Amino acid sequence: MLPPVCILGLGLIGGSLMRAASTKTSVFGWSRSDQTRQSALEDGFAVSASLEEALAKAADTDALVVLASPVPTFAPLLRTINDVAPTVRLTDVASVKSMVADLVSQHAPHARFVGSHPMAGTAHSGWRAGSPDLFRGAAWVTCIDEETDIADWLPVAALALAVGSRVVPCESGEHDRAVARISHLPHLLALALAQVGELGGPLAMSLAASSFADGTRVAGTRPELIRAFTETNVPALVDALDDALGIIGVARASLASTGSLVKITEAGHAARLAFDDRGSDLTAVELTGQDLAEQLLAVGSAGGHVTHLTLKAGDPEGALVRALYPSLDGDL
Amino acid sequence: MLPPVCILGLGLIGGSLMRAASTKTSVFGWSRSDQTRQSALEDGFAVSASLEEALAKAADTDALVVLASPVPTFAPLLRTINDVAPTVRLTDVASVKSMVADLVSQHAPHARFVGSHPMAGTAHSGWRAGSPDLFRGAAWVTCIDEETDIADWLPVAALALAVGSRVVPCESGEHDRAVARISHLPHLLALALAQVGELGGPLAMSLAASSFADGTRVAGTRPELIRAFTETNVPALVDALDDALGIIGVARASLASTGSLVKITEAGHAARLAFDDRGSDLTAVELTGQDLAEQLLAVGSAGGHVTHLTLKAGDPEGALVRALYPSLDGDL
Repeated sequence: MLPPVCILGLGLIGGSLMRAASTKTSVFGWSRSDQTRQSALEDGFAVSASLEEALAKAADTDALVVLASPVPTFAPLLRTINDVAPTVRLTDVASVKSMVADLVSQHAPHARFVGSHPMAGTAHSGWRAGSPDLFRGAAWVTCIDEETDIADWLPVAALALAVGSRVVPCESGEHDRAVARISHLPHLLALALAQVGELGGPLAMSLAASSFADGTRVAGTRPELIRAFTETNVPALVDALDDALGIIGVARASLASTGSLVKITEAGHAARLAFDDRGSDLTAVELTGQDLAEQLLAVGSAGGHVTHLTLKAGDPEGALVRALYPSLDGDL
Repeated sequence: MLPPVCILGLGLIGGSLMRAASTKTSVFGWSRSDQTRQSALEDGFAVSASLEEALAKAADTDALVVLASPVPTFAPLLRTINDVAPTVRLTDVASVKSMVADLVSQHAPHARFVGSHPMAGTAHSGWRAGSPDLFRGAAWVTCIDEETDIADWLPVAALALAVGSRVVPCESGEHDRAVARISHLPHLLALALAQVGELGGPLAMSLAASSFADGTRVAGTRPELIRAFTETNVPALVDALDDALGIIGVARASLASTGSLVKITEAGHAARLAFDDRGSDLTAVELTGQDLAEQLLAVGSAGGHVTHLTLKAGDPEGALVRALYPSLDGDL
């Protein structure tokens, strides 16, 4: 089920994916950077300096092409794909999904595209920072939208499983709304906290300990990287910001008027305990049949994930999917 | 310079202090809990079941009494101190300082009081969670207010140095304003973030990774502990909340109207880098003389700290203080 994989862009994510996938299938790729190509070639990987050459090989071998370069490079890459390999299997690993789906519709409308997003990373970047274990145990979102053909989704999910990830199926918009809350908002709160602390002057900085260090850690991420995902997820992030402003504003008013923070402390603590407890109620289920897309989306929405894929004997389009799903919600 | 130490309350902080100080001076204490007393006695420490007895011994030996129980217990403890040992040397280790100074003025006005706050802790509590190394390398605030006699400040600073802390002198109000920003606000932002994430449902929880886990970590603290310090530091915390609401609100408006987050990302990243760099410009200075209090406060305000204390030969009240102070600010 896992075709050859062609990776465009060999930074932290693309480079880690090349290493991780290479033990499971044939992998090749492209990088615009001489230095990255040199490093990857030295490490024994097949990397071309010609995008057209890499894409022609992808078309010849019915490979899965992975867009792993920064989102601002996607439009020209997609136009070349549309020229050289218009109906190729295609995915991406960017941290926003609706916006990428729009770019694909616009520039490579015939590609067999399924967006994806591995929830993995480190503070470092570049080929040399990569690791074949980067994706192990991470959630890897694989998008299923109205127009998605499950036959196109299967190789993307198979790739994520092959490198050790939990496969989370969901709609592109659902993904963007979720990551606004659990990834993009945490970055903005960290950036705000860092500034409020600095306004306290050198005394505040010298007293700051683990709560401040943890709360501001991701503010150490390069500003252009934070802007790359936050500024491409505007409506969902504005909603998340409004929820945060509402909760903090109510707490501020309560503290100033009655001196009490009972509401935010109780509700926030309960929410953190629920986060610690996530996944504890998952049990194995099997999915198959004509409405596989709906079943997969139900699994993702409920906090579950796909663990195994097998093709059904004699049915090249049919798949048997094993997943983990919250037991309290009963059968699908 | 370090007198005997009498610790009232033997939880995480009091119990760690008893262990840490015991190699440097004579240490004894009191706990209201049978189980804590039993554990401490088994570990070889002198712990009384009678508060009056412990305080009488403190008065006899001119010991430094350390209030290490929760703030709500301070008023009755202070009334007993005023009855049994009214002019005793006294400090506390609570995370708010103005409010404790008010309680002491009200209930034990003759005590030789200097408030203090070790910026140390773990997620655990109780005698058994304690460690003699808890204070090593931590900032330990020692308050100097208008009415403070440096002769009373010296043993408190000596205790903090004896257990391996950096001694940060500052006014009570300065402390409260600083910790509102670098400790109390981080707790409220973590509590808000946990709730905004939970509003994203099970999908958001299953996708949450390190930025969410780090950003909500302190929301795992028990609500009554968070309320104990936030609700006793109202004006300073309201100011910090207003700064946070302002910065987040401006970012929200900018994102919604222009799609840009350039301001918050650049300023927040620079603030985090400044935090990482704190203390890099400190050089050794020596302080002494009649205006020692002013010199010490200048050190703390500038982000410096005290490293050594020695008494001056033939002058029981005179001290020589070595400290680290930002070199760019020049001489004191």
